[in-house]
Amino acid sequence: MSVTAPEGFVAAGIHCGIKGSGALDLALVATADGAAVPAAGVFTQNLACAGPVRVSRHHLETTGGHAAAVILNSGNANCATGDDDAVARVMCELTAKELGCGEEHVLVCSTGLIGIPLSLDPLRTGIPAAAAARAGTGGPAAARAIMTTDTVPKEVVVDGAGFVVGGMAKGAAMLAPNMATMLAVLTTDAAVEPADLHDVLARAVEGSFNRVVVDGCTSTNDTVLLLASGASGRPDPVAFAFAVGGACHELAMQMARDAEGHTKVVTVAVEGAATAEDAERAARKLAGSLLVKSSFYGSDPYWGRVLSELGVAGVAVDVDAVTIAYDGVVVSKGRAPTGADATGVAAEAEFTLTCRLGAGDASYHVYTNDLSHAYIDENMGTS
Amino acid sequence: MSVTAPEGFVAAGIHCGIKGSGALDLALVATADGAAVPAAGVFTQNLACAGPVRVSRHHLETTGGHAAAVILNSGNANCATGDDDAVARVMCELTAKELGCGEEHVLVCSTGLIGIPLSLDPLRTGIPAAAAARAGTGGPAAARAIMTTDTVPKEVVVDGAGFVVGGMAKGAAMLAPNMATMLAVLTTDAAVEPADLHDVLARAVEGSFNRVVVDGCTSTNDTVLLLASGASGRPDPVAFAFAVGGACHELAMQMARDAEGHTKVVTVAVEGAATAEDAERAARKLAGSLLVKSSFYGSDPYWGRVLSELGVAGVAVDVDAVTIAYDGVVVSKGRAPTGADATGVAAEAEFTLTCRLGAGDASYHVYTNDLSHAYIDENMGTS
Repeated sequence: MSVTAPEGFVAAGIHCGIKGSGALDLALVATADGAAVPAAGVFTQNLACAGPVRVSRHHLETTGGHAAAVILNSGNANCATGDDDAVARVMCELTAKELGCGEEHVLVCSTGLIGIPLSLDPLRTGIPAAAAARAGTGGPAAARAIMTTDTVPKEVVVDGAGFVVGGMAKGAAMLAPNMATMLAVLTTDAAVEPADLHDVLARAVEGSFNRVVVDGCTSTNDTVLLLASGASGRPDPVAFAFAVGGACHELAMQMARDAEGHTKVVTVAVEGAATAEDAERAARKLAGSLLVKSSFYGSDPYWGRVLSELGVAGVAVDVDAVTIAYDGVVVSKGRAPTGADATGVAAEAEFTLTCRLGAGDASYHVYTNDLSHAYIDENMGTS
Repeated sequence: MSVTAPEGFVAAGIHCGIKGSGALDLALVATADGAAVPAAGVFTQNLACAGPVRVSRHHLETTGGHAAAVILNSGNANCATGDDDAVARVMCELTAKELGCGEEHVLVCSTGLIGIPLSLDPLRTGIPAAAAARAGTGGPAAARAIMTTDTVPKEVVVDGAGFVVGGMAKGAAMLAPNMATMLAVLTTDAAVEPADLHDVLARAVEGSFNRVVVDGCTSTNDTVLLLASGASGRPDPVAFAFAVGGACHELAMQMARDAEGHTKVVTVAVEGAATAEDAERAARKLAGSLLVKSSFYGSDPYWGRVLSELGVAGVAVDVDAVTIAYDGVVVSKGRAPTGADATGVAAEAEFTLTCRLGAGDASYHVYTNDLSHAYIDENMGTS
């Protein structure tokens, strides 16, 4: 049910003609009555961000954090085309006209290739068709309509204490710091003010989407949105934060497991760092290393490469005390092998690589993948 | 002739038993008369650096920049084994004994896998054998003896005005900032004091080896050494700097062209940056991007990814003015495509990707490769 699980939301997913394949390529999520409700957004930090990002950010600022709908297309990122801002605004206008709300109450997301003009023709007929199809059962179709290289739709429902959080996302390649090439729309029937909604969402994103590192590339279109209908009344603040955090974490892990052409999901945990910044930097360095990722693909617990990457991560590390473990099998201590055999662990589909730096008490972790032939195949061309 | 081209040097390359394949695995470069001469070294910045790096650095400090010989092995990096420092010192002692020089006048390099103990047994017989084989014609054998995943030996001779610079190197994977997994030994018959020799070498390394970015990983063993016999007298300082710079550049390009499993060599040039630091950071960001490198492999001039990476490079960039070109074919200006077709350029074996940031006058360039299936195949296991 995803985004239509919480009370007060409808959705649709249709094919309007952007994707030549005939697959679903247009999604709509809206309040059931067309009214604007509290809404929050977290967006890419990319300076070359796409038109839809600029328009959505502007709309949330204009309305003080309120929205009635989100219109999303896949198959084209509407980015770096020269008129991406204008196209994004027209998408909002067309949607507002169908729903009877102000265009500033519509948020917009696009995902797909960069630099190719997005024609408005399929959208002029598609947006009315999506509006006509919107229903309380439309969540799954919407989740399918935002897929690009995803092989499965990503949906989540968290049943809180008296409220519900629902969500859908698309991910696959380019997941990296700042949520590269990922879109997520979350909904809830809890009643939460815009400022609180933004705080909860920002913290949830930091602990989830921002920790999934597939290839270290960050995208121009990344967006996470959360709309709150208020139908179930005020939630317990702690329970609400946990529910939103849990929903984001579940969607993030679905993304990591469906990343382009991977064979493994590896949690990279850094402990014993001098500072939180050092811990994060070291974890991201390892997760972004081509050689470390190739060794994951080969099921090879080659800790020597891990140690070498720690040595150039730009963080405080006591190389004579550093410990490296695969799922708890300590393979090296202080620049020397222990003799322990982690080849069984390294062959598993999911495992944790833990590095203790011996420099302090700070820790951080990220989720990443191996680097496979299939990744290159999916990314060597634009088609 | 490589390292034995300049007057006053002998060399040898033999198989001593480190590599199971029977390939050459031990190289010696020495002064013809066993006397210590001015010498300089530039080493990896990796905190987890290998024993040979620590020992060579210490010897150069102890002697104020003088050396009589370099002993090098391939097939094992002598790194992170717990006794790598001790093994490196014994390699120097064994060499000094054969040559009749002080052990502090011997420099040592190792390249190969990390974390596997390097047995002294083959070295105890191998080093005397290499010393016995040393000759003025030994350069090519020495260049072969330092190869690991290299497919061809890397040698250079630059004939200066009245002096000669010769050199050999090994490279292949992991080339990155700070000369990852690369060794180079250069020799000259020019008479240059140690301090000047170091200045010239450091500048030459910055303009050459440090600009080759294969996979962004940096190694524990990287070393560039330069020994000056003085046989041809004092050189013109400018001509000497040019000759050393040219020799290093030629060896660096040989490395880039022989990098593991690549199909292309791409020069990534950033112009119009606000500062030199910004220019370097942007160039290294692009050269290290998995998505950009995959598009090189696919011969796809996908400038949208390039723009996206510039947007998250952490540098000042005017996204409305940025220009992207493949060998001069300008494919985008100011976040929009120009319509120019660079597919022909992108299919070439070597081309230049130029990005003008529109933020100032600083520039920088690096040399990199595409990301191919073969790269992963070579790096997915330790064997």
